[in-house]
Amino acid sequence: MSSSSTFEPLVVLQFSSTIPDVTKEWVIKRLTASQEENDGADLLVRYDMDPESHNNILLIGATLHRLLIGAEELRIKKPYKQKTLREFLVSDIDHFDNSENPTNFLLKSEKQRIIWEEMQVIRPLEHEHFVPGFPTKAITPENDTILGLLRDMDFIVSIFPLHDKEDIKLIEHDWFMSKDSLFKSQDIHKVRNYFGENVAYYFAFLEFYTKALIPTALLGLILSFWPSSDFFKYSTFCIFNVIWWSIFIERWKRVSITLAYQWGTLDLQVFERPRSLYYGDLHRSPVTNQQERRYPTWKRSLKKYLVTYPITMFCLALTLWIYFTYYAIQKKTEKTYPLDKSIYLPRAKVMRLAPSIGYSLFVVPLNMVYKKLATYLTNYENHRLQSGYENNLTSKLFLFYFMNCFIGLFYEAFFNANYGNVAQLLTAFVIINAILLKFTEQIGPYIFKRVKKSQLVVNRAPTDAKVSDAVKQAKTLTPFEGTYSDYLTIFEQYGYVALFSAVFPWVTICALINNIFELRADAFKYCYVYQRPFAQPAWNIGSWHYAFDILSLVAIVTNTALIAMQPSVREYFSSYTDAEYILFFVAAEHVLLALKFAISFAIPDIPHEVQIAKAKSLYESNQALRRERERKALKAQESIMKS
Amino acid sequence: MSSSSTFEPLVVLQFSSTIPDVTKEWVIKRLTASQEENDGADLLVRYDMDPESHNNILLIGATLHRLLIGAEELRIKKPYKQKTLREFLVSDIDHFDNSENPTNFLLKSEKQRIIWEEMQVIRPLEHEHFVPGFPTKAITPENDTILGLLRDMDFIVSIFPLHDKEDIKLIEHDWFMSKDSLFKSQDIHKVRNYFGENVAYYFAFLEFYTKALIPTALLGLILSFWPSSDFFKYSTFCIFNVIWWSIFIERWKRVSITLAYQWGTLDLQVFERPRSLYYGDLHRSPVTNQQERRYPTWKRSLKKYLVTYPITMFCLALTLWIYFTYYAIQKKTEKTYPLDKSIYLPRAKVMRLAPSIGYSLFVVPLNMVYKKLATYLTNYENHRLQSGYENNLTSKLFLFYFMNCFIGLFYEAFFNANYGNVAQLLTAFVIINAILLKFTEQIGPYIFKRVKKSQLVVNRAPTDAKVSDAVKQAKTLTPFEGTYSDYLTIFEQYGYVALFSAVFPWVTICALINNIFELRADAFKYCYVYQRPFAQPAWNIGSWHYAFDILSLVAIVTNTALIAMQPSVREYFSSYTDAEYILFFVAAEHVLLALKFAISFAIPDIPHEVQIAKAKSLYESNQALRRERERKALKAQESIMKS
Repeated sequence: MSSSSTFEPLVVLQFSSTIPDVTKEWVIKRLTASQEENDGADLLVRYDMDPESHNNILLIGATLHRLLIGAEELRIKKPYKQKTLREFLVSDIDHFDNSENPTNFLLKSEKQRIIWEEMQVIRPLEHEHFVPGFPTKAITPENDTILGLLRDMDFIVSIFPLHDKEDIKLIEHDWFMSKDSLFKSQDIHKVRNYFGENVAYYFAFLEFYTKALIPTALLGLILSFWPSSDFFKYSTFCIFNVIWWSIFIERWKRVSITLAYQWGTLDLQVFERPRSLYYGDLHRSPVTNQQERRYPTWKRSLKKYLVTYPITMFCLALTLWIYFTYYAIQKKTEKTYPLDKSIYLPRAKVMRLAPSIGYSLFVVPLNMVYKKLATYLTNYENHRLQSGYENNLTSKLFLFYFMNCFIGLFYEAFFNANYGNVAQLLTAFVIINAILLKFTEQIGPYIFKRVKKSQLVVNRAPTDAKVSDAVKQAKTLTPFEGTYSDYLTIFEQYGYVALFSAVFPWVTICALINNIFELRADAFKYCYVYQRPFAQPAWNIGSWHYAFDILSLVAIVTNTALIAMQPSVREYFSSYTDAEYILFFVAAEHVLLALKFAISFAIPDIPHEVQIAKAKSLYESNQALRRERERKALKAQESIMKS
Repeated sequence: MSSSSTFEPLVVLQFSSTIPDVTKEWVIKRLTASQEENDGADLLVRYDMDPESHNNILLIGATLHRLLIGAEELRIKKPYKQKTLREFLVSDIDHFDNSENPTNFLLKSEKQRIIWEEMQVIRPLEHEHFVPGFPTKAITPENDTILGLLRDMDFIVSIFPLHDKEDIKLIEHDWFMSKDSLFKSQDIHKVRNYFGENVAYYFAFLEFYTKALIPTALLGLILSFWPSSDFFKYSTFCIFNVIWWSIFIERWKRVSITLAYQWGTLDLQVFERPRSLYYGDLHRSPVTNQQERRYPTWKRSLKKYLVTYPITMFCLALTLWIYFTYYAIQKKTEKTYPLDKSIYLPRAKVMRLAPSIGYSLFVVPLNMVYKKLATYLTNYENHRLQSGYENNLTSKLFLFYFMNCFIGLFYEAFFNANYGNVAQLLTAFVIINAILLKFTEQIGPYIFKRVKKSQLVVNRAPTDAKVSDAVKQAKTLTPFEGTYSDYLTIFEQYGYVALFSAVFPWVTICALINNIFELRADAFKYCYVYQRPFAQPAWNIGSWHYAFDILSLVAIVTNTALIAMQPSVREYFSSYTDAEYILFFVAAEHVLLALKFAISFAIPDIPHEVQIAKAKSLYESNQALRRERERKALKAQESIMKS
């Protein structure tokens, strides 16, 4: 176990206290074993010195050379000759920018990702048939990874890269700490350098969406004071929204691809590495001609169509059933306890609230159960790529949350036509979204962390030095669980904005104000509440893009319907028969739908400069292949001539 | 002028009789000049020996070596080591299949295309400032090509590759000559080898579409005899059609991509060569770093938005206006000449036909003018790539023909609700389509050709040998003008099938029968009526795909509306109010639209094996680039060590 002065701890592996020393030693041996001889990870490890760590916190680093080799293997791209990004090659290091300072050549987040990728694929040696210390825990050397085995046995509390206070200080001022940061664009590249592409995409999207809210919010504000007929107001706002949000979605595609190009992740779609949890038999890859795991597609399809889709459908049906049961009970209660001026009024008021409270109490845990179930089912589908995995998980969550968030609003708006209730519900949701969720999600954990931190300090003898970073982060920060819940929050909000805005334009204004703070609160959360996430490559926001697109499409239907259902609008068209009135709005809706498609067709998905860059890289590699083939052919001819 | 015994005439250049000999000689000089010294095309040429050619028919060929170099330049792909297709490299020829027989290594269509591409880019020498023989015709050496100059001066009648009787005999038996060929799939690869990808895609699509008609035609037949309510019949057929044609479109994408993969044109999207008619200033390409012409995109956009789109819109409006004028006159005539049993009955009947006849007489030339105009406008837009050019031309034609073919039907069906008329119109269109067009398009020219041929023979002294192939083809065959009109014919037919089939299922049956013959008649036309087309690379059917997709989308709307408008269906729902009835059908329509999108989303566009092949080729060229960079870096290090 090396503890040289140059050791830089990058990643923390927190064992549970139940793990015996012999198993720990075995893990450390595999992590530090050299790559060539023992097929190890060739990493540097050290126990944290802090007594608080109880020797369960392992700090992991690597030599510079090891990291550079890892960067080459992962095809990490770095700036080359101050012009383009190129896949890093150890032998070609001199041509890369900043290579004169090798320790800072790789970003800390890149180093951490390299170590993480290496750790994940480490397997037991071929002669090891059981986990040391546990003769009953058999090993299948082909399939089991060290980390997989430890997770099976619940020996790992968490694995996370260390936050870097210096680096955070560099970004936090402009991002969320200063007052004027509220009205400033983020430096998304700094965010990407610290958190990786996956998280950076979330923040880029949130900012892009927030900015897109400004014109709609302004128009909503103007229209609500404009002296005109309701029909004019509603339809202007509706038409504007259809055009605006269609452009928004298309523009985002372009922004998203430009970012992927700037970050060098554009061709990762093809070269994406399999997930470490992906299992399957070993086969020769038809692409790279190397050994790789393969799980038959038909098996995955079978699992999807026979297991996960039916279960998802069942959950959706269950949600619907619960909602309508709640609704029926609510109606019944309202009948049983009328709001007359009787002496029972206070009791009636309480009783009328009971079903809603009961419903909320029921729905929140149900949502959590569904999220776990969706994760479990997506794991079960055994996706090869992280992107495929996330897209499938997102779709499941999307469907469910769509039902859950909007079913009540839909029912009130379109079946009961009770706009008082819709307005009330919208207010409630927006406020809950803005205050309650923010509290439970962000401020809650932060207070929790403070309390824990003070406990850490209290438990310690005053003579001791300060608590080590690794221990602090392991004990006080919340493990990072992906960007899903953050996307879901925006998605839900966009739902309120898009689906009902024609009639309730003030929702947009609330959303705008909320998001300006939301972005900074989220930034704070990622820096100070969560453990640092591993930088995960990404080249778009995945299925969320479809989720937003579908919502915009549904919004056209709901908004025209909402407008048509307003009594003031019906009056405006009082000369029309019912049939004519409906046909008029159906025609308007079709025109808007066609408009949306025309816009999405007219705006090219890929900006011109990215298209050229793509063509260029394709051309260059194609030319290289050609030159290689020519060289080989010439060599073959020469050798024939000689003989 | 070489006339060696190995000269194989491949391409025919037919001069007009007005061209002076000095100009002809100049052209021939540029065509035969060597590439290195005089920047010529390095081709072989010979005047046709037939006296009938009057020395105006030039036969063009090339040495084998020249053709092989051309194949390398054009990145033509050939089978490599019996496994994959690879870009042809002269130095690597030994590894390609069939290279032991070099004369037949390249297909005749490939040789012809190589010559064609070379001919197109030949420019005058730098010191030539005017066309020999025409001191007033100045040359801009930067921009003018030899062929461009000749075309400007109307000196070219036609340029076409020679048909090959032997090759046609090899394909015609299975394709259209034998009786059982009617019910046999085409060998599309043979078609591609003879005509190139562009034409092959047309035939592949026509066959795929015809096969897709079988199930709908069968269901239509069964349903028309099924004892059940109209509503059941119509809605079953409609739902089936929505699902079936959505699958059809998605399946075609997959078939189309698979063909592109098998023909090696999949990556031509990126490496497509500019059109020879494309003009612009010389710039260094950001992709290949070589000199190339560039025309600013903003200029093209300006032309589109300020000139071509407004003109197109105006033409569309004009068509509408003409139709409604015709319609008004028709109504007026019907009033003026009532079909009562007066003595004027015969006269009334004739007068009532007059507007229709006038309309037809007016519309046919208008269509031809519009086609010319659309071609002119698309030329004017100056598209860089042939695919971009064709897509823009297709869109213009599509819009216009959509209006033109369907406006009458729409009007009768949805505004007049006159189903007798709709049925009559449909019958008329289908019959016109099947018989009249076939005659004018195919049988007409064929007879014309026979007549011309016999004239050729008659004019000749009986002692002379038979007429040369080149002369025969130049004088008797119709110049090939692209696949547009063929696609338009299927497109129009698909419109009748898709837009109105729920209520008139027999249209599908007619279409099926028609297409079985259509395919063979078209094949005959391409082999015996048209001059041979130059093989033009293609990787899909271009914008026609969108045209069919949009038609399927519109079909959902029209079919649900048609069903809803049937009196028998209204009766079936007699308990509904008008508003409820409309809402029911609107809801049904939305469900069908959603279904279509779900299907197009669920079926992946690229088949698995093609995806793997694409990833593989990307991986291989990427690896080659890596190896090259490593080699360069090592060399650089070595040279530093040495010094």
